[in-house]
Amino acid sequence: MENKINIGVIGYGYWGPNLVRNFIESSRAKVSMVSDFKTELLLKAKTRYPAIEVTTDCQDIFTNPNIDAIAIATPVSTHFDLALAALKAGKHVLVEKPMTVTTDQALRLIEEAEKRNLVLMVDHTFVYTGAVQKMRDLVVSQELGDIYYYDSVRVNLGLFQHDVNVLWDLAVHDLSIMDYVLQSQPYAVSATGISHISGEPENIAYITLFFPRNLIAHIHVNWLAPVKIRRTLIGGSQKMIVFDDLEPSEKLKIYDKGITLNGNPNDNAEKVYQMLIGYRTGDIWVPKVEMKEALQTELMHFIDCIEQSKRPMTDGYAGLQIVKILEAATCSMKNQGQLVKLNLAEVGV
Amino acid sequence: MENKINIGVIGYGYWGPNLVRNFIESSRAKVSMVSDFKTELLLKAKTRYPAIEVTTDCQDIFTNPNIDAIAIATPVSTHFDLALAALKAGKHVLVEKPMTVTTDQALRLIEEAEKRNLVLMVDHTFVYTGAVQKMRDLVVSQELGDIYYYDSVRVNLGLFQHDVNVLWDLAVHDLSIMDYVLQSQPYAVSATGISHISGEPENIAYITLFFPRNLIAHIHVNWLAPVKIRRTLIGGSQKMIVFDDLEPSEKLKIYDKGITLNGNPNDNAEKVYQMLIGYRTGDIWVPKVEMKEALQTELMHFIDCIEQSKRPMTDGYAGLQIVKILEAATCSMKNQGQLVKLNLAEVGV
Amino acid sequence: MENKINIGVIGYGYWGPNLVRNFIESSRAKVSMVSDFKTELLLKAKTRYPAIEVTTDCQDIFTNPNIDAIAIATPVSTHFDLALAALKAGKHVLVEKPMTVTTDQALRLIEEAEKRNLVLMVDHTFVYTGAVQKMRDLVVSQELGDIYYYDSVRVNLGLFQHDVNVLWDLAVHDLSIMDYVLQSQPYAVSATGISHISGEPENIAYITLFFPRNLIAHIHVNWLAPVKIRRTLIGGSQKMIVFDDLEPSEKLKIYDKGITLNGNPNDNAEKVYQMLIGYRTGDIWVPKVEMKEALQTELMHFIDCIEQSKRPMTDGYAGLQIVKILEAATCSMKNQGQLVKLNLAEVGV
Amino acid sequence: MENKINIGVIGYGYWGPNLVRNFIESSRAKVSMVSDFKTELLLKAKTRYPAIEVTTDCQDIFTNPNIDAIAIATPVSTHFDLALAALKAGKHVLVEKPMTVTTDQALRLIEEAEKRNLVLMVDHTFVYTGAVQKMRDLVVSQELGDIYYYDSVRVNLGLFQHDVNVLWDLAVHDLSIMDYVLQSQPYAVSATGISHISGEPENIAYITLFFPRNLIAHIHVNWLAPVKIRRTLIGGSQKMIVFDDLEPSEKLKIYDKGITLNGNPNDNAEKVYQMLIGYRTGDIWVPKVEMKEALQTELMHFIDCIEQSKRPMTDGYAGLQIVKILEAATCSMKNQGQLVKLNLAEVGV
Repeated sequence: MENKINIGVIGYGYWGPNLVRNFIESSRAKVSMVSDFKTELLLKAKTRYPAIEVTTDCQDIFTNPNIDAIAIATPVSTHFDLALAALKAGKHVLVEKPMTVTTDQALRLIEEAEKRNLVLMVDHTFVYTGAVQKMRDLVVSQELGDIYYYDSVRVNLGLFQHDVNVLWDLAVHDLSIMDYVLQSQPYAVSATGISHISGEPENIAYITLFFPRNLIAHIHVNWLAPVKIRRTLIGGSQKMIVFDDLEPSEKLKIYDKGITLNGNPNDNAEKVYQMLIGYRTGDIWVPKVEMKEALQTELMHFIDCIEQSKRPMTDGYAGLQIVKILEAATCSMKNQGQLVKLNLAEVGV
Repeated sequence: MENKINIGVIGYGYWGPNLVRNFIESSRAKVSMVSDFKTELLLKAKTRYPAIEVTTDCQDIFTNPNIDAIAIATPVSTHFDLALAALKAGKHVLVEKPMTVTTDQALRLIEEAEKRNLVLMVDHTFVYTGAVQKMRDLVVSQELGDIYYYDSVRVNLGLFQHDVNVLWDLAVHDLSIMDYVLQSQPYAVSATGISHISGEPENIAYITLFFPRNLIAHIHVNWLAPVKIRRTLIGGSQKMIVFDDLEPSEKLKIYDKGITLNGNPNDNAEKVYQMLIGYRTGDIWVPKVEMKEALQTELMHFIDCIEQSKRPMTDGYAGLQIVKILEAATCSMKNQGQLVKLNLAEVGV
Repeated sequence: MENKINIGVIGYGYWGPNLVRNFIESSRAKVSMVSDFKTELLLKAKTRYPAIEVTTDCQDIFTNPNIDAIAIATPVSTHFDLALAALKAGKHVLVEKPMTVTTDQALRLIEEAEKRNLVLMVDHTFVYTGAVQKMRDLVVSQELGDIYYYDSVRVNLGLFQHDVNVLWDLAVHDLSIMDYVLQSQPYAVSATGISHISGEPENIAYITLFFPRNLIAHIHVNWLAPVKIRRTLIGGSQKMIVFDDLEPSEKLKIYDKGITLNGNPNDNAEKVYQMLIGYRTGDIWVPKVEMKEALQTELMHFIDCIEQSKRPMTDGYAGLQIVKILEAATCSMKNQGQLVKLNLAEVGV
Repeated sequence: MENKINIGVIGYGYWGPNLVRNFIESSRAKVSMVSDFKTELLLKAKTRYPAIEVTTDCQDIFTNPNIDAIAIATPVSTHFDLALAALKAGKHVLVEKPMTVTTDQALRLIEEAEKRNLVLMVDHTFVYTGAVQKMRDLVVSQELGDIYYYDSVRVNLGLFQHDVNVLWDLAVHDLSIMDYVLQSQPYAVSATGISHISGEPENIAYITLFFPRNLIAHIHVNWLAPVKIRRTLIGGSQKMIVFDDLEPSEKLKIYDKGITLNGNPNDNAEKVYQMLIGYRTGDIWVPKVEMKEALQTELMHFIDCIEQSKRPMTDGYAGLQIVKILEAATCSMKNQGQLVKLNLAEVGV
């Protein structure tokens, strides 16, 4: 009992209760304090978990000497201040995605965590799902061959946010999955989008991401769709993946399907050209995928990182990379698709 | 029998046999001549329809005084020359989509047809399907309210063309449907895409179309997808449509779903904002849709137009409009999403 | 607080925790005691709800004078003894389905409850779902016309029970839904089935139920299916329903589809016959269905019945009716489909 | 040309045109004569194939000395007389399914064909599809392990036949597939069903088939369903199959899923029992399946059998087996599920 990591949670709205539940259900952490500025949410926490101390003032968490680590599940605009204060108080930090509102903020948090040897982890939950782990394995093991494209759709009738546009709310998931699976960084982005409520952020958006070596990615997000779609296609030179996250069990399908190139592509005669491209259609394979709750896996990884002073899989740099793309995409979207370069080298990635 | 419209068909590859079959099965037309430069295709036509005269020289069709109208089902690059020759020979013309390779060519054909009082129709087949007709009715009758967006996906493992990119092969369908359903023209386009075979046209493409009055459209086309998807979402302020063309019978679903705006949008306090947006989820309605083969409907319309000197629903201007967008989108795609304005007024549309 | 109904729960395995959670989350009941003979389950209950008293001896619940009502969530074979003891202790009873192992037991419980003016309710949870309520409304309002058939499939790879066959485990759901929706009792049953493990109960079963007035029902249940299917078809003379309980939101579809009969059916000539039957295919309608957790609705109904001395929707007679059918079906199954009559009148239904 | 098998086709209603087209498109047969008593159908045949001779009198086909083989695509009740006349005229015969109305008739045709050394083949088309061939391969190769069950659903809003019940119209497909795939004969049948139109045959039916060695089969057919379902489940001790014939390409899915039995099944203690049954869930595999039109494969097999004096895969005995089951099932259905034994040995199978 005494060896448990002691956690404080800031924010008990939508996601906070999931963090608390998963920390508590593990045998390796305890949650000693929860803060939220809404007292009705604190009452809910207290009813469910009488042993947890609750407060409307998050300073109580920062100054609590027994707390080892702080999980921050508040609106994006507050992430930077809260995470920085937590790090300065000597606490390890798990912060919701998107990590911050600007890349500068993200860099500042990374710097502070490194200076103090604290764990700084971003809650890119999807990265810890069995399906995403399997997709990464298939890419890393070259089973798909060269990766040609990554195409993702994430739409539904969703809660319109008014502090961030739909990219920061929905595309952040796809970008974090893509970043983890592809292991390659885009060099430029072109995005378009629209707001259907005067004065409010864009509720539909489309991003194209350009990568080196003939790889392209595209993400479509929409808060105003009549149906829920969560589908990703990954095309490779050998195989292709369809990832449908709404399927209860058959989430991933691997298609042994594609084109084959033969002969000399410089020869222009039609006959030769037609011989150049062959079409393959083979079997489909639906691998069994680990169905454990991803958040449980992720939080145990957070605790491992604290206990063993390891760098998390979704560390500050992973968070920074996503913020950088979201920033660039938002800028491109304001300019109706104008290309925005991502100088990733500059930020040390 | 003597009152039947006499048809010549140029091109007996993929689409030509469908044209011939549908003309013949109607009681209002006869096909007297088919040309193709491949003799094995002509042999196939002759075996199936011994009464049809076949030729490798399409001049035989132009010069045949008994032929009233010519249907052209050849590669895009040949449309302009063949259609112009047909018009000059005094024949009515039905030409495959896309109408031509350039807007200038399309304008030239329109001019020639108008000068000679000949019917010039473009084979935008989808416009004649029951599902598309129903979608247009729903838009025109204001049942959807204000239209917010049009989003279409048309992907599969398809034959790579080497004379045109995937926009001209696949997006042409969506653009013609969109043009007919929305009854509104985009003012600018931003497109991205990629070719995965060195020296060949783009096989994946994404287009965003910007319209006046807060309407946006997006089309995703791909020749290299592991699964076939044919799905269009249309979002309106009152209702929303999902059109899935792969569904054998339940192709259209109308969702009584969306957001409602109340109060004063200029008031910035959060509380007021949250009251501003309401979310509606009501019943779904799957209207019965006419399942007749669209090409039959379309060809009868072509014959009506010839007999009654009417302007076709999918006339030269409809064809021109699509070519203009394809031209602009291809230009934008070469420049990685750079906005290209569509000066539709210039071309008299 | 003092007016809350005080509940004791016997059995904290699969379903017990759901009962406890739903009683507690309502403001109208409190759970003061939970019993189970497995101490590890009691530990789980205690950790989650420190205020609840736990015991391995259910007598503690019967003898607790503060407890008003007892919910029994134990294996079927124990239902009778526990429910009878609870009633004799003067407690209202909510018992899991199937109510008992025999109709005699069910009758005995009804008698005991009536004698003591206690509420006896059977936990036919599905009856309280929005989808089932809507189906009943459609039947009662005659919107479907005359009901022709009820066909249900409930299969998956499920836990093999060893005390009851698959009918008692899975078909019990369909029978309780059917009984509630159709408002009509079958007069006979024919069932077939098989066990694939020597000495164990049947893991696949098919029941046909014969009703008066040309109505037939069929239920297919299977613990050894590769996929999960939960689908019911209801055919009526005017409309037909497909109920797919695995659909996250579009659970019910109403088809305006069917046959129409015209003319004189005694005329045997083919021509006349062909005119007799017409086929209608109209729109499909997907009504919005209440998505609230059914168990919450059900438990509030249980409390209403206690407070207002009302007869529950799923009372002892509803429970008895299902047990009677399960008994008859099991008997028919042992005799490879031999018809078994249901003398429902005898049991006073 | 002279070596082509010369075919006469009797019946040009729904299926006849498919026979004619497939014979003609092959290079190994010619259709020289078509008969039907409806002249409008003969007109249709003549328009499409001017070279074919048409007649309202099928005697013209029997007596035509140039005709080698006759394909019979008429209502079931006429199969016996026509097939017998054809055989007596010395022609090879391909007859639609069901082969005849009674087993006696089927036996008589087998006898006549054997006496004259003529090919007698029944048009069990599904047997020649890639999906069914693959299923049989999986069963024969023991990849599924021991076969536990075969469950098939074939329902839709279909044309009500008035000469045969729904078993003879729809279940005939499932029975012929099952017979071919399982390679095992049922020893008894129990069937239930109902007619919703007074005086007309049953339009809904359910059959259970009992096989030796713990194998059970069930078929559900319905002419009055709001949706079309064509789905077969095959459960084996090692693997299980889902065959969905409405899937355009992914028709077969093989699930590496099931239960495993360990230890001593005679030990009755619960703990031991629970260890007895293990549950496996592994990958799913969607094999590529030959998509060629089955009728083409089948007709070439018919020609092979004629040319090489071979016994067809779907010979008279296969046809007889299906008729025998249909007869027994109809009898059981009249008696509300009463078991009917199939004395298959008696008929020499």
